[in-house]
Amino acid sequence: MPFDYIPPLFKKSSAKIVLLVMDGLGGLPMQAGGDTELETAQTPNMDRLAAEGTLGQTIPIRPGVTPGSGPAHLALFGYDPIQYEIGRGVLEAFGIGLHVGKGEVAARGNFATLDAQGNITDRRAGRIPTEESKPIVEKLKQIKIPGIEIDVEVVKEYRFALVLRGPGLSSEIHDTDPQKTGVPPLPAEAYVESARHTAELVNQWIKAAHEAIKDEPKANGLTLRGFSTDPELPTFKDSYDLTAACVAVYPMYKGVSKLVGMQVLKFSGDQPADEFAAVKAAWNDFDFFFVHIKKTDSMGEDGNFAGKVGIIESVDAALPGLLELKPDVLIITGDHSTPCLLRSHSWHPVPFLLWAPSSVRPDTQTRFGERFCAAGGFGTIPALDTIPLALAHAQRLIKFGA
Amino acid sequence: MPFDYIPPLFKKSSAKIVLLVMDGLGGLPMQAGGDTELETAQTPNMDRLAAEGTLGQTIPIRPGVTPGSGPAHLALFGYDPIQYEIGRGVLEAFGIGLHVGKGEVAARGNFATLDAQGNITDRRAGRIPTEESKPIVEKLKQIKIPGIEIDVEVVKEYRFALVLRGPGLSSEIHDTDPQKTGVPPLPAEAYVESARHTAELVNQWIKAAHEAIKDEPKANGLTLRGFSTDPELPTFKDSYDLTAACVAVYPMYKGVSKLVGMQVLKFSGDQPADEFAAVKAAWNDFDFFFVHIKKTDSMGEDGNFAGKVGIIESVDAALPGLLELKPDVLIITGDHSTPCLLRSHSWHPVPFLLWAPSSVRPDTQTRFGERFCAAGGFGTIPALDTIPLALAHAQRLIKFGA
Repeated sequence: MPFDYIPPLFKKSSAKIVLLVMDGLGGLPMQAGGDTELETAQTPNMDRLAAEGTLGQTIPIRPGVTPGSGPAHLALFGYDPIQYEIGRGVLEAFGIGLHVGKGEVAARGNFATLDAQGNITDRRAGRIPTEESKPIVEKLKQIKIPGIEIDVEVVKEYRFALVLRGPGLSSEIHDTDPQKTGVPPLPAEAYVESARHTAELVNQWIKAAHEAIKDEPKANGLTLRGFSTDPELPTFKDSYDLTAACVAVYPMYKGVSKLVGMQVLKFSGDQPADEFAAVKAAWNDFDFFFVHIKKTDSMGEDGNFAGKVGIIESVDAALPGLLELKPDVLIITGDHSTPCLLRSHSWHPVPFLLWAPSSVRPDTQTRFGERFCAAGGFGTIPALDTIPLALAHAQRLIKFGA
Repeated sequence: MPFDYIPPLFKKSSAKIVLLVMDGLGGLPMQAGGDTELETAQTPNMDRLAAEGTLGQTIPIRPGVTPGSGPAHLALFGYDPIQYEIGRGVLEAFGIGLHVGKGEVAARGNFATLDAQGNITDRRAGRIPTEESKPIVEKLKQIKIPGIEIDVEVVKEYRFALVLRGPGLSSEIHDTDPQKTGVPPLPAEAYVESARHTAELVNQWIKAAHEAIKDEPKANGLTLRGFSTDPELPTFKDSYDLTAACVAVYPMYKGVSKLVGMQVLKFSGDQPADEFAAVKAAWNDFDFFFVHIKKTDSMGEDGNFAGKVGIIESVDAALPGLLELKPDVLIITGDHSTPCLLRSHSWHPVPFLLWAPSSVRPDTQTRFGERFCAAGGFGTIPALDTIPLALAHAQRLIKFGA
């Protein structure tokens, strides 16, 4: 259980919580003396919530650690990613909607380019676009290995996910990626005796796969990494007594939500207003809504400052559609920072806004932005505190002790 | 390893980090409504760095705990002194440049005054000055015990360090200091069977030592405390992938740096400018420079407010010599507070300034000082976070997870 002391405090309640995550929200000024993306954006709705609510900034994993999207979301959900280690293969598979159940094994695949001697010349097959890798993955789908079921799906560009299902499988298998060029891919090797059978099956599959793609100009080889199985995380319901829904456009975030037992809602459209409409449609069926906005992160990775500002402003503009549902607690935050300046995820603290009309304590801040959050009423807190704070402000917990 | 999750994140980089520690930097106003030493000092260079960088304040060990110099530096280096207990004997020995290797045993010695019955009348031998204890320690150096090598050196005033080297030694020996007067020093006593041999050797040495100094007017007895051996700390290189250099004037700080595998640089002079020149001379040979300024602490212990202000201003004046090297990350902080008002180390949080031109997030603060640091962008953080934050801002870490 993420917080052993929380379940004994559960209180029956119909209070509703919305966790609105703008991926990679945190930013940096593009030059000394400037403002960040969020500080630059015109956000009258969020500023009002900031004035009425409490601000803070969160540390996603640990100070100085730049999180990947999977670990960052697990932390937001209260599952310490240092404690709950989740394999790369499982995250990748869940991310594209492939389920990995107990005893099933997932791996992340990379297409690679091999020379005539079978040595790797490019570990990412020239970063072939998704459209090119799709038909290659179709060839891989034809491969059958007696005794097991196999799922293969494209993830993005040169990446794919592989899931094996069958009796007696183990994930304790080394990566086949040698992490360098000029050498061939490694065979799958078990690091415990009980995984030898699985390693043999994987090697059969690798052999057949290399045969199937040998004439591809770029993706004529592959490596497998992050063999892993279902981490069997405690569910949101058990951990927080919340029936939880996920509203997200991208598969990765749906996958992480499923890992903790959220129900992934189907809806059409991919704009903030569409996502808020999906929340509205399911409003009576859940206690908790995780709403994920992807494009803040994409713009950050592209170094598109104006684009990221625009996405934040579009979320703000759509916000009245969420507020009219009268959530008891609304948290607006990110999973990590993706400053346009760095064009990548970063370790910087993440802006955090909690609004709860019937229970929140106001601080001195009146605008939503990094430097206001750093001076906010919550101070600097671990992202892990997010759900406990949401539960408290929703008044869904009784007191601890007499 | 101080942070198990850091080594898997190492990224090759030539980015350079400088950790500038003004010992006992934190202070207090001398009267209500006044400014602290740092707030009083004119520090135009540090104020500019404060405006461009992020401020915070660090808790050296735990809230309310006043640290000694050894533990405070270990914490700054990321080694939690509550977790990594390092014997007083080892710290004392390293502090004066005596090495304590694996299987070797160090103890801290105190001269004491004994009466005619051999009972202690003064546990610190009237705090005799270093000049008086030096010739007494020379007598102790003459003592030979078959089968072991012995090093004895003056530390300061009535204190000395003893190091034993030889086969089969153990440090699991009780202090011989009875912690009160009117009783004789205790014999060395093993607290495990395997240390009995060492205890016997120590008792032989104590007997010979008392014989050698029996005619001294004040220092005619001694006690031994803090028996300990090499803690075998993980090195800075293994822990952070940093080749690290120490630039310090006082032996204690060189000792702690050696304990974590830093290379201690030799240089002439003892002024801030001399220390910065030493950094410059070795700039191409290391990734990380720990620069230690002692006199802020000495002035604090003397209650010399103007003197401490002056030392801080002299560091600020010399700072351009460090900045011209263009460090990627510069942290300016203390190891603990030594307010002139208290004339001693204290538990107060320590001012912390991180400047990193290509990656730091500005906060609302524009001056370096305790109250500005308390409102800074990092908030209040453990001193243990120092090196992870430095690594992150130097962009020497990859992201955690996908």
